[in-house]
Amino acid sequence: MQTLKVELANRSYPIYIGRSLISNADLILPHLKRKHVAIVTNTTVAPLYLETLSNALQSAGVKVIPIILPDGEAYKNSETLNLIYDALLQNRCERSTTLIALGGGVIGDLTGYAAATYLRGVPFIQIPTTLLSQVDSSVGGKTGINHPLGKNMIGAFYQPQLVLADIDTLQTLPAREFSAGMAEVIKYGLIRDAEFFDWLEVHIEQLMALDEQAITEAIYRSCKNKADVVARDEHETGERALLNLGHTFGHAIENAMGYGVWLHGEAVGAGTMMAADLSQRMGWLTDTEVVRIRQLLTAAKLPLDAPKLGAEKYLNLMQLDKKVADGKIRLVLQQAIGKSVITSDYDAEKLKETLSLSSM
Amino acid sequence: MQTLKVELANRSYPIYIGRSLISNADLILPHLKRKHVAIVTNTTVAPLYLETLSNALQSAGVKVIPIILPDGEAYKNSETLNLIYDALLQNRCERSTTLIALGGGVIGDLTGYAAATYLRGVPFIQIPTTLLSQVDSSVGGKTGINHPLGKNMIGAFYQPQLVLADIDTLQTLPAREFSAGMAEVIKYGLIRDAEFFDWLEVHIEQLMALDEQAITEAIYRSCKNKADVVARDEHETGERALLNLGHTFGHAIENAMGYGVWLHGEAVGAGTMMAADLSQRMGWLTDTEVVRIRQLLTAAKLPLDAPKLGAEKYLNLMQLDKKVADGKIRLVLQQAIGKSVITSDYDAEKLKETLSLSSM
Repeated sequence: MQTLKVELANRSYPIYIGRSLISNADLILPHLKRKHVAIVTNTTVAPLYLETLSNALQSAGVKVIPIILPDGEAYKNSETLNLIYDALLQNRCERSTTLIALGGGVIGDLTGYAAATYLRGVPFIQIPTTLLSQVDSSVGGKTGINHPLGKNMIGAFYQPQLVLADIDTLQTLPAREFSAGMAEVIKYGLIRDAEFFDWLEVHIEQLMALDEQAITEAIYRSCKNKADVVARDEHETGERALLNLGHTFGHAIENAMGYGVWLHGEAVGAGTMMAADLSQRMGWLTDTEVVRIRQLLTAAKLPLDAPKLGAEKYLNLMQLDKKVADGKIRLVLQQAIGKSVITSDYDAEKLKETLSLSSM
Repeated sequence: MQTLKVELANRSYPIYIGRSLISNADLILPHLKRKHVAIVTNTTVAPLYLETLSNALQSAGVKVIPIILPDGEAYKNSETLNLIYDALLQNRCERSTTLIALGGGVIGDLTGYAAATYLRGVPFIQIPTTLLSQVDSSVGGKTGINHPLGKNMIGAFYQPQLVLADIDTLQTLPAREFSAGMAEVIKYGLIRDAEFFDWLEVHIEQLMALDEQAITEAIYRSCKNKADVVARDEHETGERALLNLGHTFGHAIENAMGYGVWLHGEAVGAGTMMAADLSQRMGWLTDTEVVRIRQLLTAAKLPLDAPKLGAEKYLNLMQLDKKVADGKIRLVLQQAIGKSVITSDYDAEKLKETLSLSSM
């Protein structure tokens, strides 16, 4: 097991990464205010891991309230959020009750947001069960839900007490979702860690084969990169926006196709290629660098062809994104592998060229 | 105009108290990130003050988006909250857009919560137009909505940039609502400021006649008391719970009768008498003190007779309240005028006696 401490101004918390963590209540107990938890999970994850977690906690004398939600990005909305509130109130959960998110990014975002807002804030613990949530949504305190007019439009910054990244859960993860998570892993190399990008190129086959050591290392380095960025910019006023590489494009794809049709990580992967394409057109990335990016994303079995929506529709959707400052779209682009920048100083015509292509 | 600075660990903000503040855009302009605001108000307040505020801001070059909600505590819910989100998204409001709450406590709580959660947080300004919201909900950062199973169950701690308490708005406030606000004013004297309680006994007639100097002073001293408490305990882990004098009883009344039947301040007033009654039964308040409390609340034209629900129903409703620690109801009771305590160390039988009476 590896341990990473996320340092934040007012609060810090540990991330444990390794095998058989879900059955180990000793990791959780020191973080409970009292022995009363609500485990929020979904219909896919519950049959796999809910009993293991519940039994471990109940054996330690913890009262467990299970809250099982429908599975999917389509349910990351206010109706599902209300199901959590209803269950918490019906079970008279109090300020000392800890919410545990057992699932992927949707469960983590929903549960974190419920924890941030129930009784104006109760403690919560993240047990991410997908690669994407292990390397992304479990670090940084972003919680929230979607709105019919846009993704993650409603939310709060709220930090967990603890994150358990149990890599055994990746054994039951569909291959497509594993690949989607790899898009975020690769992102960390691209934005600020060229050495990690090199390491990924060398280890991509081991990673795709779920080699224990390689996976643990990739999650650790991804979380470390994200934690470093977040520690310096908790509320996304500056540098943290680098983490949105591929996301402004990706959110437009998700929004246009309907949530859940493209997986978030898949949309980010295609968006990352769009950012690389524009960066190349601006003369910031070399042809060789773009080929390396494409090859690594391809080896991770990610779809690279963004849907052909037309430049106008893309621009319209991208303006809805939060990365707009005073009406002008700011983008995360590449100056090199390992060096991203946040900029609105690009050629608008070249952006249209990138957006006009269905395939990069 | 009087100015009170609310000092908080990470952020401070000013409260301006006086006449003709709504038409004075110069007070607001320095607090805007950019000249783009959404004014959230309701169908009652909009015809009275929306044009004045909008004109003042527009003359200064500020783009104004009005959001007019139905009026009443019954609308402090997730449906109305969604109306705000919808309008913000339809008008492409960004992180630099400031939300302005123009109205009473419901508008302040809803708007503050929308500000706390829209795009994970945008700035907001409070312009409270009722006495209750001027002395209570505009200080302390509590925002939120009701749930069918309980009041204020969903929310966030979120501080405004600025509060404008324009006392001209009290001229158009129904007498019943003014009295409801007086219940909270009197509360500050009771919990921690015996001298203020004495001052209120002397000035109650001037206050009920809306004398400018007396009103300004009463609001200032109420906000000062609240700000002092909140500054020491922003997230209500200790002393701040004193501000809930009368509220655990009061919430039970509101909940049982249906939100909006009793005004919040009226329920707090009756709840304050219940707390005084129990304190007297415990031998903590003298008969004379109870008479003084009753006389001041009566002079403020508040209803003092709590509905006769029966002790069991009261206990059940009170257990739903957030002031429950490990299942045991903690109450704010009086040890003297000007000295409240938070305690679960009272005689449960005496509490039942208090709850069994319809009239104190």
